[in-house]
Amino acid sequence: MNTRLRAAALGTLAIAFVGTATAADLKPEEQIQTRQAGYSFMSWNMGKIKANLDGDYSQPQVEAAANAIAGIANSGMGALYGPGTDKDIGDVKTRVKPELFTDQEGVGEVAVAFIEAANNMAETAALGDEAEVKAAFGKLGESCKACHKKYRKD
Amino acid sequence: MNTRLRAAALGTLAIAFVGTATAADLKPEEQIQTRQAGYSFMSWNMGKIKANLDGDYSQPQVEAAANAIAGIANSGMGALYGPGTDKDIGDVKTRVKPELFTDQEGVGEVAVAFIEAANNMAETAALGDEAEVKAAFGKLGESCKACHKKYRKD
Repeated sequence: MNTRLRAAALGTLAIAFVGTATAADLKPEEQIQTRQAGYSFMSWNMGKIKANLDGDYSQPQVEAAANAIAGIANSGMGALYGPGTDKDIGDVKTRVKPELFTDQEGVGEVAVAFIEAANNMAETAALGDEAEVKAAFGKLGESCKACHKKYRKD
Repeated sequence: MNTRLRAAALGTLAIAFVGTATAADLKPEEQIQTRQAGYSFMSWNMGKIKANLDGDYSQPQVEAAANAIAGIANSGMGALYGPGTDKDIGDVKTRVKPELFTDQEGVGEVAVAFIEAANNMAETAALGDEAEVKAAFGKLGESCKACHKKYRKD
């Protein structure tokens, strides 16, 4: 699955950055809401993995949570950062910094690092060793924070 | 992957229905928001698959979208229907019908059907035959509607 997932990650990223008809189909406010939905759902699953590592460890629950995160991470969320999504739209607020829309190289770096960390987390969770999962989870959390630090307002 | 995913589906469902410490960690309004985030993100990915079937077909994009849906479907969303999440909480609105919280057998049936259809979609998307993907997508859409019809207000 490693190779397939990595290929998918790069393919998805390519899709994300050239933009697609699909991105155009969503209004800017819908793009903001949809990307926030993805992050919220990943956050819930990150919380579940943390709870498992801090308490009783359920391998199936951690694997399911990691697969949800990897599935979302690989879904081409870059398409949800289309024109007009760089600022609040009415009641739809965004914390994205303007730099995300101009620093293509830097965004590509954090995006690839995040997708690779998410895929590594899913692969590690499937194998079930708790210590390795803890390390993979730490790396994944770092990849989230790296992007937040550069491209998200406090 | 078929067997593994089916096992995960049943495991996840079991986790969902016995309830977990994780469910308790989220406030009822957060549970409603998180389940809606999951459905929103799946809806976006359903739209991408439809756009691919209606227009130019990109196998990697369809596979990525199907994996995102399957990942979310298998993540144990039943844990997001905890006590107090059966009605609006302030500005957090829900369209869930009361029956979802009492009809355990009926909910189990639509949940299993949905998870199986999502897994079938992901497996079919990975194989890449467009006609088979169209059929799998139709089945998945039916499984969504079956639950909406029984347990979601208009």
